[in-house]
Amino acid sequence: LRERLAAINECFADNHTLTRPPRSVATGNGQEHPCRHYEPEEVVDYLCRDVAIVEPASGLQKKLKLDRPLVVKLGFDPTAPDLHLGHAVVLRKLREFQDLGHHVNIIIGDFTAAIGDPTGRNTARPPLSKEQIEKNAETYLQQLGTVLDLEKVQITRNSEWYSKMSFADTLRLLGQATLSQLLSRRDFSDRYERGLPVHMHEMVYPLMQGNDSVNISADIELGGTDQLFNNLVGRGLQENGGHEGQVVICMPILVGLDGSEKMSKSKNNHVGLQDAPEEMYGKLMSIPDACLPQYIELAMADDPAVKQELLREFTDGPRGRMELKMAMAYDVVRQYHGSNAAQQASDHFDRTIRNRAHLEKDYQVVNVSQIHGEVDMPLLYEAVASLRGCSRNEARKFITGGGARVNGQTEKDPFYQLEPRNQESVFLQLGKRQHFRIESP
Amino acid sequence: LRERLAAINECFADNHTLTRPPRSVATGNGQEHPCRHYEPEEVVDYLCRDVAIVEPASGLQKKLKLDRPLVVKLGFDPTAPDLHLGHAVVLRKLREFQDLGHHVNIIIGDFTAAIGDPTGRNTARPPLSKEQIEKNAETYLQQLGTVLDLEKVQITRNSEWYSKMSFADTLRLLGQATLSQLLSRRDFSDRYERGLPVHMHEMVYPLMQGNDSVNISADIELGGTDQLFNNLVGRGLQENGGHEGQVVICMPILVGLDGSEKMSKSKNNHVGLQDAPEEMYGKLMSIPDACLPQYIELAMADDPAVKQELLREFTDGPRGRMELKMAMAYDVVRQYHGSNAAQQASDHFDRTIRNRAHLEKDYQVVNVSQIHGEVDMPLLYEAVASLRGCSRNEARKFITGGGARVNGQTEKDPFYQLEPRNQESVFLQLGKRQHFRIESP
Repeated sequence: LRERLAAINECFADNHTLTRPPRSVATGNGQEHPCRHYEPEEVVDYLCRDVAIVEPASGLQKKLKLDRPLVVKLGFDPTAPDLHLGHAVVLRKLREFQDLGHHVNIIIGDFTAAIGDPTGRNTARPPLSKEQIEKNAETYLQQLGTVLDLEKVQITRNSEWYSKMSFADTLRLLGQATLSQLLSRRDFSDRYERGLPVHMHEMVYPLMQGNDSVNISADIELGGTDQLFNNLVGRGLQENGGHEGQVVICMPILVGLDGSEKMSKSKNNHVGLQDAPEEMYGKLMSIPDACLPQYIELAMADDPAVKQELLREFTDGPRGRMELKMAMAYDVVRQYHGSNAAQQASDHFDRTIRNRAHLEKDYQVVNVSQIHGEVDMPLLYEAVASLRGCSRNEARKFITGGGARVNGQTEKDPFYQLEPRNQESVFLQLGKRQHFRIESP
Repeated sequence: LRERLAAINECFADNHTLTRPPRSVATGNGQEHPCRHYEPEEVVDYLCRDVAIVEPASGLQKKLKLDRPLVVKLGFDPTAPDLHLGHAVVLRKLREFQDLGHHVNIIIGDFTAAIGDPTGRNTARPPLSKEQIEKNAETYLQQLGTVLDLEKVQITRNSEWYSKMSFADTLRLLGQATLSQLLSRRDFSDRYERGLPVHMHEMVYPLMQGNDSVNISADIELGGTDQLFNNLVGRGLQENGGHEGQVVICMPILVGLDGSEKMSKSKNNHVGLQDAPEEMYGKLMSIPDACLPQYIELAMADDPAVKQELLREFTDGPRGRMELKMAMAYDVVRQYHGSNAAQQASDHFDRTIRNRAHLEKDYQVVNVSQIHGEVDMPLLYEAVASLRGCSRNEARKFITGGGARVNGQTEKDPFYQLEPRNQESVFLQLGKRQHFRIESP
């Protein structure tokens, strides 16, 4: 198994470049952009291969045919400066545009951050001082640097135009949207229909974001699928002003470590881009198996061949999911910290899992044949029923209730196939106090 | 009948004062206000006798107990400077406050008038120049002078604060209202539900009007019942700011000359406050009978005894509605042009109606007995059936289709009781060319 993992790892070069243009071209200097050497159709296929939504569908090709560096916009809210792997999904797409010679323009929403929540009810959005905003923006840029080429990024603060905006301008901006357009945003209509307050200033925010696009003449706006509505507003405002609307590209949303909710710092289900290698590796090893394909697709570096192999293994392969997870975790850590750090994190994980078991004074060594008279590793529920001396049904309930940990991780699938870690033992913890080491004969 | 009318008219003094404080007190100089000589309860009864809504119900009394001149606000939109009898219903209530020594503050909405309709779709609201707005405001003030004591009116332009309002202030203002609060305004929810556009800037207007109240620290806001929502928004904003909210007083809406829609210049169903006496009188004589009680209550000068007598006559009295209408028309013209002008307008109306009939070369004199063999005047459909030689059902359709004019006015009620004008003749026009003068024997 170690060799297989090493083979997979070798597929990745040891550098921080996350994305590659369709063929290996040196990226241009911003004036000369390499995408001119390809047919726009080829570039579109390349850029869209892992994208969730392009609106309008033919828009990207049309923009690329303009044969000039495009302005690619990403908005950032400086109240939440901690970037995680969910953000990285979008940032890596931005990097692809950057590598193709296009201009990335990051809008820092400093204006609204300085206001905070004007109703004062949302304590998570206090008004931030100029200093706090600048500090957050700096932290943010530093993290961006783990994915983007910062020297080629243009940073724009939207206070540049909003601090000068008159009330008359505001009414003219608001006049460009109707109530039903804004209520087509599900977040608003859901809350309205459920009787929860939607404050009027909130309905201005999509228009502000859209107006940012007008101000920087964005050709493309990137975001997660949850930004589709806001980013289409920008397209509409540009068209109202007699300009061609931006193309909206939405990336899939990465699920958090809990496997159920969108990755976010407030849910504490995130892997920060600046997490230490060992922390990053450990968090990634804790995801539910069911999320592994998504992490392979969205968090791993961009090598379609490797991803495809791992996904095939996940569905049909003879190997356990633990080792696929290790390959994924290794690659993610490698992207942000390099190969050496990734290897050390992997080793550290092995050691601590093993050590944890060794430190337990009362772990009990069990030979696999004691469990079900065979030399193959049992399914989890078989082991639990045998070790706890209970019925299979009770064992199933115990497992789905979260009582069993396999090699340090909670495993809720009763049919989970136990397999020895590094061809040695399976460490099985039942409840708080029962520790077993199941060994092959 | 002429004598009865003269007797009614004598009830009114020949002056332009439309309202009177509860007892005949000289009005104060603004510092010394006469209402202090009455119990607040008495003043409340007096001020509320013809009011549609006071919100909150106990609010007016509480404000009057403050024992200082109150700030009474009325907003004015300088895109539509022509005032009519509908506005006068509210203005006369303002005058009552003024006569009691309170401070009238007229807000001129010059800020929004200068913007016009930001969507550019409503051609009735083009952006107005400063000059046009000032000209409209001047015209408006001149018309206000027919009802209010202009020397004691404070004029405020809301550009005073809105021209200085920052975008941040705007967001803070908007944060004070929720979508569902604004959608409780029927105009918005109706349009939204019917799929008609509600532009977002429109939803800001109620907040702007409300914010005007905050800026002038209004104690009371007057308006028609159609302003209830907007004026309650002002109350809410004042309370949000930690102040006592204004009391909202709404006057009934006067129906237009067509008897169906609210009086408005755009519907061309209005009597302008500066219409010439004869025009005013003629227009008032053209209202459908069914509206007469409303005009007696809302357009006539404030003498409850006279009004009550006329209303009793309308319901039970032996006299025709034409003469009650003349009494009403006389009194309204008298308010804005004086007794002499009112008398002249009345005479002119008589002459022209009569002359119009005389000028017709082909009018046919018919004795009432020719119609139905009796000396009493017939119902309209009886006359039409007889004079056109058609069935009663055909006559009914002809009348409800608008084919019959009685004494110069279209009459659509087949059961209308004809009665001789000034005890002489009934002039009946059927279609465009048939003119009859029906005479009593």
